[in-house]
Amino acid sequence: MSRNFGSDNVTPVCAPIMSAINAVNTGMVASYGEDEYTERLSAVARAIFEADLVIYPVATGTAANALALAQIAPPYGGIYCHETAHIVTDECGAPEFFTGGAKLLGLPSSDGKIAAQRLETAIDLANEMGVHHVKPSALSLTQSTEWGTVYSLEELSALTAVARRHRLPVHMDGARFANALVCLGCSPAAATWKSGVDVLSLGASKNGALCAEAVVFFDRALAESFERRRKQAGHLWSKFRYLSCQLLAYLEGELWLANARQANAMAGRLALGLAKVAGARLLQTVEANEIFVVLPERLVTCLREAGFHFYTWPWCTVSDGIPVRLVTTYATSEADVDDFIHEAQRLS
Amino acid sequence: MSRNFGSDNVTPVCAPIMSAINAVNTGMVASYGEDEYTERLSAVARAIFEADLVIYPVATGTAANALALAQIAPPYGGIYCHETAHIVTDECGAPEFFTGGAKLLGLPSSDGKIAAQRLETAIDLANEMGVHHVKPSALSLTQSTEWGTVYSLEELSALTAVARRHRLPVHMDGARFANALVCLGCSPAAATWKSGVDVLSLGASKNGALCAEAVVFFDRALAESFERRRKQAGHLWSKFRYLSCQLLAYLEGELWLANARQANAMAGRLALGLAKVAGARLLQTVEANEIFVVLPERLVTCLREAGFHFYTWPWCTVSDGIPVRLVTTYATSEADVDDFIHEAQRLS
Amino acid sequence: MSRNFGSDNVTPVCAPIMSAINAVNTGMVASYGEDEYTERLSAVARAIFEADLVIYPVATGTAANALALAQIAPPYGGIYCHETAHIVTDECGAPEFFTGGAKLLGLPSSDGKIAAQRLETAIDLANEMGVHHVKPSALSLTQSTEWGTVYSLEELSALTAVARRHRLPVHMDGARFANALVCLGCSPAAATWKSGVDVLSLGASKNGALCAEAVVFFDRALAESFERRRKQAGHLWSKFRYLSCQLLAYLEGELWLANARQANAMAGRLALGLAKVAGARLLQTVEANEIFVVLPERLVTCLREAGFHFYTWPWCTVSDGIPVRLVTTYATSEADVDDFIHEAQRLS
Amino acid sequence: MSRNFGSDNVTPVCAPIMSAINAVNTGMVASYGEDEYTERLSAVARAIFEADLVIYPVATGTAANALALAQIAPPYGGIYCHETAHIVTDECGAPEFFTGGAKLLGLPSSDGKIAAQRLETAIDLANEMGVHHVKPSALSLTQSTEWGTVYSLEELSALTAVARRHRLPVHMDGARFANALVCLGCSPAAATWKSGVDVLSLGASKNGALCAEAVVFFDRALAESFERRRKQAGHLWSKFRYLSCQLLAYLEGELWLANARQANAMAGRLALGLAKVAGARLLQTVEANEIFVVLPERLVTCLREAGFHFYTWPWCTVSDGIPVRLVTTYATSEADVDDFIHEAQRLS
Repeated sequence: MSRNFGSDNVTPVCAPIMSAINAVNTGMVASYGEDEYTERLSAVARAIFEADLVIYPVATGTAANALALAQIAPPYGGIYCHETAHIVTDECGAPEFFTGGAKLLGLPSSDGKIAAQRLETAIDLANEMGVHHVKPSALSLTQSTEWGTVYSLEELSALTAVARRHRLPVHMDGARFANALVCLGCSPAAATWKSGVDVLSLGASKNGALCAEAVVFFDRALAESFERRRKQAGHLWSKFRYLSCQLLAYLEGELWLANARQANAMAGRLALGLAKVAGARLLQTVEANEIFVVLPERLVTCLREAGFHFYTWPWCTVSDGIPVRLVTTYATSEADVDDFIHEAQRLS
Repeated sequence: MSRNFGSDNVTPVCAPIMSAINAVNTGMVASYGEDEYTERLSAVARAIFEADLVIYPVATGTAANALALAQIAPPYGGIYCHETAHIVTDECGAPEFFTGGAKLLGLPSSDGKIAAQRLETAIDLANEMGVHHVKPSALSLTQSTEWGTVYSLEELSALTAVARRHRLPVHMDGARFANALVCLGCSPAAATWKSGVDVLSLGASKNGALCAEAVVFFDRALAESFERRRKQAGHLWSKFRYLSCQLLAYLEGELWLANARQANAMAGRLALGLAKVAGARLLQTVEANEIFVVLPERLVTCLREAGFHFYTWPWCTVSDGIPVRLVTTYATSEADVDDFIHEAQRLS
Repeated sequence: MSRNFGSDNVTPVCAPIMSAINAVNTGMVASYGEDEYTERLSAVARAIFEADLVIYPVATGTAANALALAQIAPPYGGIYCHETAHIVTDECGAPEFFTGGAKLLGLPSSDGKIAAQRLETAIDLANEMGVHHVKPSALSLTQSTEWGTVYSLEELSALTAVARRHRLPVHMDGARFANALVCLGCSPAAATWKSGVDVLSLGASKNGALCAEAVVFFDRALAESFERRRKQAGHLWSKFRYLSCQLLAYLEGELWLANARQANAMAGRLALGLAKVAGARLLQTVEANEIFVVLPERLVTCLREAGFHFYTWPWCTVSDGIPVRLVTTYATSEADVDDFIHEAQRLS
Repeated sequence: MSRNFGSDNVTPVCAPIMSAINAVNTGMVASYGEDEYTERLSAVARAIFEADLVIYPVATGTAANALALAQIAPPYGGIYCHETAHIVTDECGAPEFFTGGAKLLGLPSSDGKIAAQRLETAIDLANEMGVHHVKPSALSLTQSTEWGTVYSLEELSALTAVARRHRLPVHMDGARFANALVCLGCSPAAATWKSGVDVLSLGASKNGALCAEAVVFFDRALAESFERRRKQAGHLWSKFRYLSCQLLAYLEGELWLANARQANAMAGRLALGLAKVAGARLLQTVEANEIFVVLPERLVTCLREAGFHFYTWPWCTVSDGIPVRLVTTYATSEADVDDFIHEAQRLS
């Protein structure tokens, strides 16, 4: 049983992916992605997303996001995103570095979602300022968001319509895309290109893989020379089979959905349980695998003393306690959740 | 008589600087700054600032700021500044480009000044986040500020003390430094290095020069290899005498102060006059050569129809009219100001 | 009389350009290139080059070259050029910096000209290596070359045909374009776009201007967002009239050709004279305003003691003396040349 | 039995490293390198290299090299290296990109080794040229070299002494460091910091790992903020245990040396065998695990038809056949080698 609700990065690799890695470990295989696993991955991704896409595996989410953004925004460009987006707060300036100077233009809101009207207004202001302002160049959406919420298809379409009107390609940071997909209950196609997304950072590391993400271009023209961009960034593995096989195992047989379903279900169970903890107040609707909850300061201390691991959340200000983030994963069990709730009730 | 209050960029070159340019236009002179004018400029700047400084002329304020910041902040660095700083809003991403990816961390306030406590809090948060957050690397202050206000020496010292405590070098964007200096009434040394400033972008273009700014390092160690950085950026003129002579004429004989005094005085006169205009409301104390004033929408229209030129200001929201920026310069006369006030009174 | 044959950067501004600068120094004028002089410059350049071009003035040749190359080559690109090109040897890495990492692929030859066959071979090798090699992205030619030679129209066409076949845009570093044009005796159009050049760095600083170069795009599509790139690089002057007026005076009334004609004529006269100097051996055909000559070591010393200024040339190895570069300019007179030859004969 | 002599990238992961990966796949473990495996790796590396070093694992050799170089060379810097260095020819501009514009200054030689005198001359020329030339900033040596040769300790010391005299930090690209070490038969300390190396890219991927390299700083001061540079580049894995455990298994129990010993021995056996193949001519002394050999064109064709895989080598010109590279690895057996020789003899 685990008392670690700190992150979806602390889990081991899930069994099917570990098996896949062991399975490919035989014989001489062409390097740099010229292998059969990479080829099969492309085929599988195309089938699942019902699109003539191109998919580029990389090892980290920061690489996926930053490379994708560098592909669509010039050095003098502006990238619209939420002010608490991972690309703004947690990637140590990777987007600025990879783009060669583009600016992240953070838009505020309390639930992690950008409002279409606010995006429109921001672009209009930029256009008025002309050459002195960075050029509106891209829209980056996080799905599920940094606040554990999920854009509905309608919300996505409204946002991407604004982007399209101003000729901005749309990037989706899908570090937790599977969690959003399970919440939406729609097809991968509906959740992405059918809703106006041009490039997806498809995460797997937080959902059971060893280290595997992918940059997925639904618009092939946007992917021009991307393989060189990845190489120049040091993100082209030589023994590529070990990267592709993870994603293959992830997507085949719906492993990604199964893992995300478990994580989301455990988050829901946790949210329900928290309703019974005195002084606990949910900050956001729980739609994926992250719970943001205000807890009494004393309870936070006691839970930590009891061995529970989680982070306090610095991006909001509350007066009735401490804002805390709890993360559930594919590896979280009902027992783990019930243990947390039980202890929280006991200690509060 | 001029009805142009749009910017301090629209004026011609003031007579003493134009004379200086014509005066140096004779004979063969060593290029790339190996000339006597550049040498004299160094000597003059050292005397005026009472410091063993190094001074690097460049042609634009954006170049001065971006090169200075690139010198003190690494690609993975964060630069604290006001959220409406020129480097944030008006330089098309130059600091991000020149630093190779550093992030501008804009701090809010209504008067254009950063509060020391807010800076401290922001640095603390960054340090807590560790490697995921850009490294706190520099503080950039604008003097006079984007809102026409001027940091007092006490305010400066409080801010630079925070920076010093966290080992952040301090940059001052002095596009309108002379205007601030005249307002403060102190020595150039007191307004800069004695108040904790390490690098100054010293502006002249907005105050009478043709195209001349300078990066001034009070800490010589910070200037290491700066001449190569400038060269690589295409900002080393070949016929350097024409750049240095402008700054020489600007600083010698206190031309910079005389020009700024006129600009500030005209701003003060304008502010006084606006008190008599119905519906006009000053948004900020007028301390330098910029006036931010709310005017009735109809008056704005009428003034423009009467041939007055000025900008509306997008960086604030008011409900009682239109926020407008008026800029006075060395070339603004009392008659220009009185004309504006007279017409405004007549039209309102 | 001048004994300075060191560079075309040491001259004063020629009279017509200085007059133009003084002439525009009156009244309030819109900044950042929204002025009538800049507009007229566009019209004049279009007429002279017989093309629907766009022209962007900047202050230095390094800026013109680096910005032009950044516009046409991605960070993962390779730029073919001569191994002694100014962009390789004398710009402190500006092209690498502005492009965000592109590689200059220097091709060798003894006369400063690239051979079409060598270019073809180099591109083929790159294509074979695939993703590990930078992407062949641009061809940059220097006209007149770093060795004082001039590509014929046939040579240009052969090279640009190779580039075109591989879809590489062609840049011309025309720091001394006027000198080449005078040598070729053809129209500006024939020497550029009609010979396959897409972007020209048009120099004026070495040929009489104060500080003025221009990036000229013959293919408008290539210029997309260039104004923001220039701004982000700090190369958009605020008082733009003072930049445009130089180029206007330069191009109008054929001043550029007159100045270049004088410089070239003096170079020719110098070359003829050197034939009479014992031990002097020309390294290259003299076609523009630079002479590369091997002089006996003792003569070099004596000439310098006599007050002559010139550079020895490190980019070649000879055994019969010292390789020396002599540069003539618009300001070089017959008396200057005759004085040099006379002294050289006397001292040798 | 394998007929693949194409690269050391095509092998599977060696058994001990695969076991290590499986062994760590259990339980919740702190992410981003805050785990026990990473801590143990540091301890082990310090013991093996007898130095108070810091070690930063990354997934690819390109990342290791480019991040290391970015740490020691500024954007306006020049990095001396061999003209056929991997960083020059095979990393798609990664060093230029990561440094923000530094220039690779390739020095020629026929055996892949830089000569100390040539380095000295190149630095002197740069210093003479001053601000126009990139600043001599670093020396990068490849060990073993791109030509399969190995610098002796004396050669290393002579080169690093030149670097030291000019204050250039020294980087070693050790993609095949273990192969060189086995050849030298000295301690890891003697082969690196005791010979003047400041930063080592320590390769493991080509020698049995899945994807693991490490940047090793022997001078801790040089490593300042390197963790942020790695993060910003997207090279900080979240599930870091899977990276560290590879290197731990690699270094512990001398696996790295055992693997390299096998690869080198097989290269030696292959070289011996080639002496018996008609028309084969070794281009270089075989000191590590790469053989460069000229083979008759017909033999090359026949070997390929027989299913052997290897690359022709474009970086040299010969008239007596086709230059070919053969690579042996930890997984190459005596039978593999004998098979090749036997077939080559038969076919020639």
